[in-house]
Amino acid sequence: MNIKDIAKLSGVGVSTVSRVLNNHPDVKKETRDKVLEVIKECNYVPNNSARILKSNNMKHIGVLVKGIFNPFFSEMLKIIETGINDIGYTMILHHYDTNSLGGNEGEVLISFIKEKRLQGVICLGGNFSKIEEERFEEIEIPIVLTSVDSHMKINTKLFSRVCIDNKKAAYEATKYLIEKGHEHIAIMLGDEFDAGVSNRRVMGYMEALDEYHIPINKDYIVMGGYDFEPAYESAKKLLTASPEITVLFAISDIMAIGAGKAMSDLGFTVGKEISLLGFDGLNIGKYYTPALTTIEQPGKQMAEDCIDLLVQLIEEKEANQNIILETRLIERKSVCNFKG
Amino acid sequence: MNIKDIAKLSGVGVSTVSRVLNNHPDVKKETRDKVLEVIKECNYVPNNSARILKSNNMKHIGVLVKGIFNPFFSEMLKIIETGINDIGYTMILHHYDTNSLGGNEGEVLISFIKEKRLQGVICLGGNFSKIEEERFEEIEIPIVLTSVDSHMKINTKLFSRVCIDNKKAAYEATKYLIEKGHEHIAIMLGDEFDAGVSNRRVMGYMEALDEYHIPINKDYIVMGGYDFEPAYESAKKLLTASPEITVLFAISDIMAIGAGKAMSDLGFTVGKEISLLGFDGLNIGKYYTPALTTIEQPGKQMAEDCIDLLVQLIEEKEANQNIILETRLIERKSVCNFKG
Repeated sequence: MNIKDIAKLSGVGVSTVSRVLNNHPDVKKETRDKVLEVIKECNYVPNNSARILKSNNMKHIGVLVKGIFNPFFSEMLKIIETGINDIGYTMILHHYDTNSLGGNEGEVLISFIKEKRLQGVICLGGNFSKIEEERFEEIEIPIVLTSVDSHMKINTKLFSRVCIDNKKAAYEATKYLIEKGHEHIAIMLGDEFDAGVSNRRVMGYMEALDEYHIPINKDYIVMGGYDFEPAYESAKKLLTASPEITVLFAISDIMAIGAGKAMSDLGFTVGKEISLLGFDGLNIGKYYTPALTTIEQPGKQMAEDCIDLLVQLIEEKEANQNIILETRLIERKSVCNFKG
Repeated sequence: MNIKDIAKLSGVGVSTVSRVLNNHPDVKKETRDKVLEVIKECNYVPNNSARILKSNNMKHIGVLVKGIFNPFFSEMLKIIETGINDIGYTMILHHYDTNSLGGNEGEVLISFIKEKRLQGVICLGGNFSKIEEERFEEIEIPIVLTSVDSHMKINTKLFSRVCIDNKKAAYEATKYLIEKGHEHIAIMLGDEFDAGVSNRRVMGYMEALDEYHIPINKDYIVMGGYDFEPAYESAKKLLTASPEITVLFAISDIMAIGAGKAMSDLGFTVGKEISLLGFDGLNIGKYYTPALTTIEQPGKQMAEDCIDLLVQLIEEKEANQNIILETRLIERKSVCNFKG
């Protein structure tokens, strides 16, 4: 009897059982009660990770993170790390920066797996669509990709995936802005090399504009490098060159905050004279002035699903899966109606 | 000839050599030139970590992080992780939350070292002053503490430390506020169990008030839990109960941002009608409205010093050290003069 059996009998994931065992507040009362009942019925005594580890060899799960600065990934990472420890594995973390790679992310992944002798890998972000299948022939461990594009052509013989529908999310976001009366809608993507989510999100943006017969203006599509500073600079340039723009949709909350600063510095009151829409649903957005309207990704659930799925895959209880989760618009104060 | 020899010959740390090798922009030109010259003279060919790892057993450096959400630590972690990889080690990361431990952080550290078979450990945050020396008798690996209090009674037979002078930093911050004309100065600490930095910072605050003959009001000392939400709630309660307060000094930028939202919600314009001072020097503070005045910790240098020192300790080239780095006041827009 172990934590995975308890999870199975309770009809929940191992990460939920772990949260109940660790007295984590973030579990529904009925779920908690159910898990505790199963634990009691089974006379289950939780192992601590020390004991698990002493009786086994070191077992490693790798986590490969794209990009140096991404608080959305940081928040997911903490959930993933806790989950990995709870099932008696050790997390090996590796960040990489695509600019230094010429886009060869598949090689990074392969080296990581071979060097670190992993039992499984979770990749946060990245673009693995160009991977050559034969390079993966020797790799026998399960790989779960998350926060990558949902339509990327990946081979489910090689990978599992937990993600959102990036195109749909951006389509709905743009539609929301159009319905608020905006027509001069700019979008700020990450970077040009980001063939993952940026591509899909800009396609969703274009689809919505097209549906409402709003002409697509390529000057309205700019890059913000997924960080405050480049987003600030990019927004300043954009809004100076095209002052008719009434709203900017930034595909990360961090870029939205950087762009918001540019708006203030140019003399606009965000949420009154100009609108700003973010993406991710970071906690910081709630405390930003004005509170940031954003598209929330279910980061916590994505992280938990990654762990639960990876455990199943390692134990060969599941075949590779492609899990797509829902996003949600959080309306706060940074988007106003267009007052023409 | 390896990266450490190059570092020694160039008179810089291994992390600097690594940044030069990786073409990182953040190295002074003269330093870069010097390192490149030494590399050339020695005909040094950098190993990639794959080769190093294949020729050795896995070598692990543990990083133990206190607290679940702390962007200051996240920023340091990335530098530490890169540094660890560059010297051919693998980073094993573990977060822990003190609330679930009853404050027994020494035991967490001991288990971590034993379970993960580490060659060295870096601890970010935490309070190890109560550690019983005999519990550490079996531990022979080097331990570097960072972001802990500089005056904590620790045993340099057991630990090295890289930190700031927390009391002095808070004293200077409070003095700055007093010299801006403020007398009703509140301080927001982390949590009551945080015997590490909170204690020393509140002592610096009190020392400055005392020096200027300003009475210490214990209602002005509140807890903000190092996160947005508890800081928001705590600030709202504080400012409602004591409306005479003209400035809040929060000992983390994240708490300052949470408290700033409470100020806005209560109808104050931050930086005009009420003042707000942070601590850490996070990037986000620059893009906050109004831009956050804060005490900057040298997080990057702290991280680099940790790695450089740990390498020396692992190779038994150095005895334990206690490195104290300088903080710096960054004046932006969130603190104004008191207009009585």
